Amino acid sequence: MTANLAAAKAALSHLDLEESGAGLKAKSRDFFWYSPVLKARLDEVCADFVVSPRSEAEVIEVLKVCYAYDVPVTTRGAGTGNYGQAMPLAGGCVMHLRHMAAVKDIQPGRVVVEPGCLLKDLDAACKEHSVQEIRMFSSTWATATIGGFIAGGSGGVGSCTWGSLRDLGNIIRLRVVTMEEEPRVLEFQGEELARVSHAYGTNGIITEIEMPLAPAYDWVDLFVATDDFMDAARFAEELANEDGILIKLATVFEAPIAKDYFQRVAPHVEEGTNLIGLMVAPHSMDGFLTFLGRRPHARLIYRSDDHDWPRGPGMVFEYGWNHTTLRALKVDPSITYLQVRYGFPQHLELIEQMRDALSPEVLQHLEVLKENGKVMFAGLSLVKFTSEERLDEIIRLHEEAGAMIFNPHRYTLEEGGRQTVDDRQLAFKREADPKGLLNPGKMIAWDDPDWAYDRMYAYPKLRAAEYR
Amino acid sequence: MTANLAAAKAALSHLDLEESGAGLKAKSRDFFWYSPVLKARLDEVCADFVVSPRSEAEVIEVLKVCYAYDVPVTTRGAGTGNYGQAMPLAGGCVMHLRHMAAVKDIQPGRVVVEPGCLLKDLDAACKEHSVQEIRMFSSTWATATIGGFIAGGSGGVGSCTWGSLRDLGNIIRLRVVTMEEEPRVLEFQGEELARVSHAYGTNGIITEIEMPLAPAYDWVDLFVATDDFMDAARFAEELANEDGILIKLATVFEAPIAKDYFQRVAPHVEEGTNLIGLMVAPHSMDGFLTFLGRRPHARLIYRSDDHDWPRGPGMVFEYGWNHTTLRALKVDPSITYLQVRYGFPQHLELIEQMRDALSPEVLQHLEVLKENGKVMFAGLSLVKFTSEERLDEIIRLHEEAGAMIFNPHRYTLEEGGRQTVDDRQLAFKREADPKGLLNPGKMIAWDDPDWAYDRMYAYPKLRAAEYR
Ligand SMILES: Cc1cc2nc3c(=O)[nH]c(=O)nc-3n(C[C@H](O)[C@H](O)[C@H](O)COP(=O)(O)OP(=O)(O)OC[C@H]3O[C@@H](n4cnc5c(N)ncnc54)[C@H](O)[C@@H]3O)c2cc1C
Ligand SMILES: Cc1cc2nc3c(=O)[nH]c(=O)nc-3n(C[C@H](O)[C@H](O)[C@H](O)COP(=O)(O)OP(=O)(O)OC[C@H]3O[C@@H](n4cnc5c(N)ncnc54)[C@H](O)[C@@H]3O)c2cc1C
Repeated sequence: MTANLAAAKAALSHLDLEESGAGLKAKSRDFFWYSPVLKARLDEVCADFVVSPRSEAEVIEVLKVCYAYDVPVTTRGAGTGNYGQAMPLAGGCVMHLRHMAAVKDIQPGRVVVEPGCLLKDLDAACKEHSVQEIRMFSSTWATATIGGFIAGGSGGVGSCTWGSLRDLGNIIRLRVVTMEEEPRVLEFQGEELARVSHAYGTNGIITEIEMPLAPAYDWVDLFVATDDFMDAARFAEELANEDGILIKLATVFEAPIAKDYFQRVAPHVEEGTNLIGLMVAPHSMDGFLTFLGRRPHARLIYRSDDHDWPRGPGMVFEYGWNHTTLRALKVDPSITYLQVRYGFPQHLELIEQMRDALSPEVLQHLEVLKENGKVMFAGLSLVKFTSEERLDEIIRLHEEAGAMIFNPHRYTLEEGGRQTVDDRQLAFKREADPKGLLNPGKMIAWDDPDWAYDRMYAYPKLRAAEYR
Repeated sequence: MTANLAAAKAALSHLDLEESGAGLKAKSRDFFWYSPVLKARLDEVCADFVVSPRSEAEVIEVLKVCYAYDVPVTTRGAGTGNYGQAMPLAGGCVMHLRHMAAVKDIQPGRVVVEPGCLLKDLDAACKEHSVQEIRMFSSTWATATIGGFIAGGSGGVGSCTWGSLRDLGNIIRLRVVTMEEEPRVLEFQGEELARVSHAYGTNGIITEIEMPLAPAYDWVDLFVATDDFMDAARFAEELANEDGILIKLATVFEAPIAKDYFQRVAPHVEEGTNLIGLMVAPHSMDGFLTFLGRRPHARLIYRSDDHDWPRGPGMVFEYGWNHTTLRALKVDPSITYLQVRYGFPQHLELIEQMRDALSPEVLQHLEVLKENGKVMFAGLSLVKFTSEERLDEIIRLHEEAGAMIFNPHRYTLEEGGRQTVDDRQLAFKREADPKGLLNPGKMIAWDDPDWAYDRMYAYPKLRAAEYR
């Protein structure tokens, strides 16, 4: 099975097609370079051409043509993913969905939208229409697409209230095109949603999305400081446990993250300051201030609706989730990160244990997350990278303690997840992508069902730019 | 200190005043008769006159005049309370707030309203204005006032998401008038709210309320049936733990409550059917149906948006909270009830234990409630009443097992609560009601600070109608 690239390009030439130039490389990359491990392996990955369909009909055409000519297709929203998710490991076609960005219908509590719509544009449309917004968004709200969020993301700002993206009720319906001789268009709801959510576009292309909405508020951004780190973690947890105080974000940063990496916050904190970043609904501010008043060890240092900082910090959520890593990286390029699950009810204990063992090599950055009705923490710990061996050892220390790791230094679904394939995703790939052309190299169970997970998986067909 | 009723009436004669007739008795009663214990004690309680002020200025006038002439004042919203809360134990004046029902201001996430506004009128105004509604309401939504809810209620429909009324953030601001020589008008926020919330109007009269709002949805009403009772309880808990499925009510009824007491449901269930009553947001119905599909032991027997019942059941919330007791009482006048707290994480265990020990004398009726971020249950158990001694014994059995009881067979704040005074309420009463004229007989700590709680408190000045 060798790709007939020339024939595919010719057949698609009437579409928005990019066959060469710097754009090709740029559109073949995502934020994989957050990981020194992936940077060493994927830096040269490049597509052969980029096509940007304008409609579902054109998506079908691209998939049909590439199927006929055995050309791999890697779909791209905005390429803000972190695990090389959107990188065309085997080259071929990058299908860029930026033209498919229409908000099609808004109703009380729900919206229907095309996948290429930016999260911020989606929110703007919903707010404008009926003062609504999406329940949760990636902190890359300003640049990422809703399709990429569903196919590659996991949750984010809003997950402290609504849980994770894949929890029941957080996606209502997905419309999906398969990659077969005659691509089919399928509508997924309920249990079927799991087939393609967070499947990296390995088994179908999402062309329409129905999502639940929440009311839009003029969220108040806040920074609260504590001297003791565990005080900060408890503050965030206890606030999230206040059922009557509506929040959209509760993030905890161990000292000296704020002083060292948050340029505009630094003048207002010390090296030893632990920071809590919050978004609170305006009508919950009174409740919040009462809560705060009961905790004299916690100091409110910034509120967006009333402050005297000569330079405001910008949006607080752009300090949280993976933006923390971004800010740290900009100051210290040797920083990378880990994704940790600190599950209820051991969460605080585990956090303390990991911090005692590893700080400051590993600095705690915590995100409040609801899981099965309980407040717990997702850790996006900052790691001072020294070697791959040491990174693996740090991971092992977490796992031994009982803190599950979602390894962001791997590009396969399995290694970034629970080390086993999602059977529903694999089964659907068999149906929907019989030639295995969709985002190849990302699903080990497809390429190498007997893989033992004893070392990092290396996709054998990984094609670097220099080999082309 | 003897009340000069004649002088007070004369001074208030230019207001809406009722001095005699059947109305006087009717406006002196509430739903105290749910309790056979209170029925035996309070049946004859009656006010000397009823005054219905039209404004805060008139409230001040009433309080000032009654203060001058030593006339007790018991405030009345709609008189739907259950513990004799609104009953003028010492006679005197009932101040009825029905004319003070204006919705003054609606903003995103908040409303300002007068106390006499019915919950349903408040919701209608908020929905009409900006598709909003109050976060939670008593199941007496159609008849009760917002002021009575705050001064006498605890939570209700919506508490499965937002917690209890007195949790931080569920009331924003209260405007309160004191009963002094010169009544003062105070504005309470934050910690001060606790002074008058659920204080039965014993230490100040609420004249304006600012409450948070949630988005209004066309909630889908549902009934789900199971054969096993604990399956039903787990279903309700697990649903409430689904962070992405938005619900407003989750109620569990042990068999044979549905068959015996729910007339319109009875044709659709068996004696052995345990019932779950739910309100689910329309955009969460897909998630809900997925959740349901995973539980083959649970049968959806009714959904308000799609059913073939010849006679619909009406609103599902009017089966829950204290409406369950009402429906049971109508069929079997010997039924009364208890209010139980089944706290996380022992809740399911405790429920099973109490049911094993006491069913069918005590039938489980559970309401999902959020407390400190956890799903737990409030029990409004149906009790087949035989004697006061047996009722006390049933209470003792609960308490010994660790299930806290809020005794609805007592008319004092302390005995209906945690058996101790709320110091903030007592302290504020000293300030705001120096003569002790506001709703007398409801705060033991005021009347008899050394009371030992070894038996039911009996207010010495309790005045029955025949003594007048
Ligand atoms: C600074 C920073 C912060 C971040 N914060 C968060 C966060 O808070 N939460 C979070 O979940 N993630 C976060 N991420 C990761 C990423 O930004 C988000 O997941 C984002 O939503 C991805 O959207 P995108 O449009 O960039 O997707 P892309 O990166 O373009 O694509 C992501 C994956 O989805 C696939 N895909 C895209 N569109 C489709 C489609 N229509 N059909 C099928 N497959 C498709 C791609 O092939 C790829 O595998 C962060 C990343 C960075 C760099
Ligand atoms: C069938 C049934 C179901 C019920 N369900 C619930 C439920 O789900 N949740 C719940 O919490 N309760 C419930 N209740 C109790 C009661 O209906 C509610 O608490 C209701 O909100 C009370 O409102 P009301 O206007 O009838 O108040 P009232 O009974 O008139 O007053 C209640 C108390 O508040 C005081 N008060 C009233 N207005 C003011 C004011 N402006 N300032 C100061 N004090 C004031 C009164 O003096 C009295 O002590 C139920 C009762 C029944 C009979």
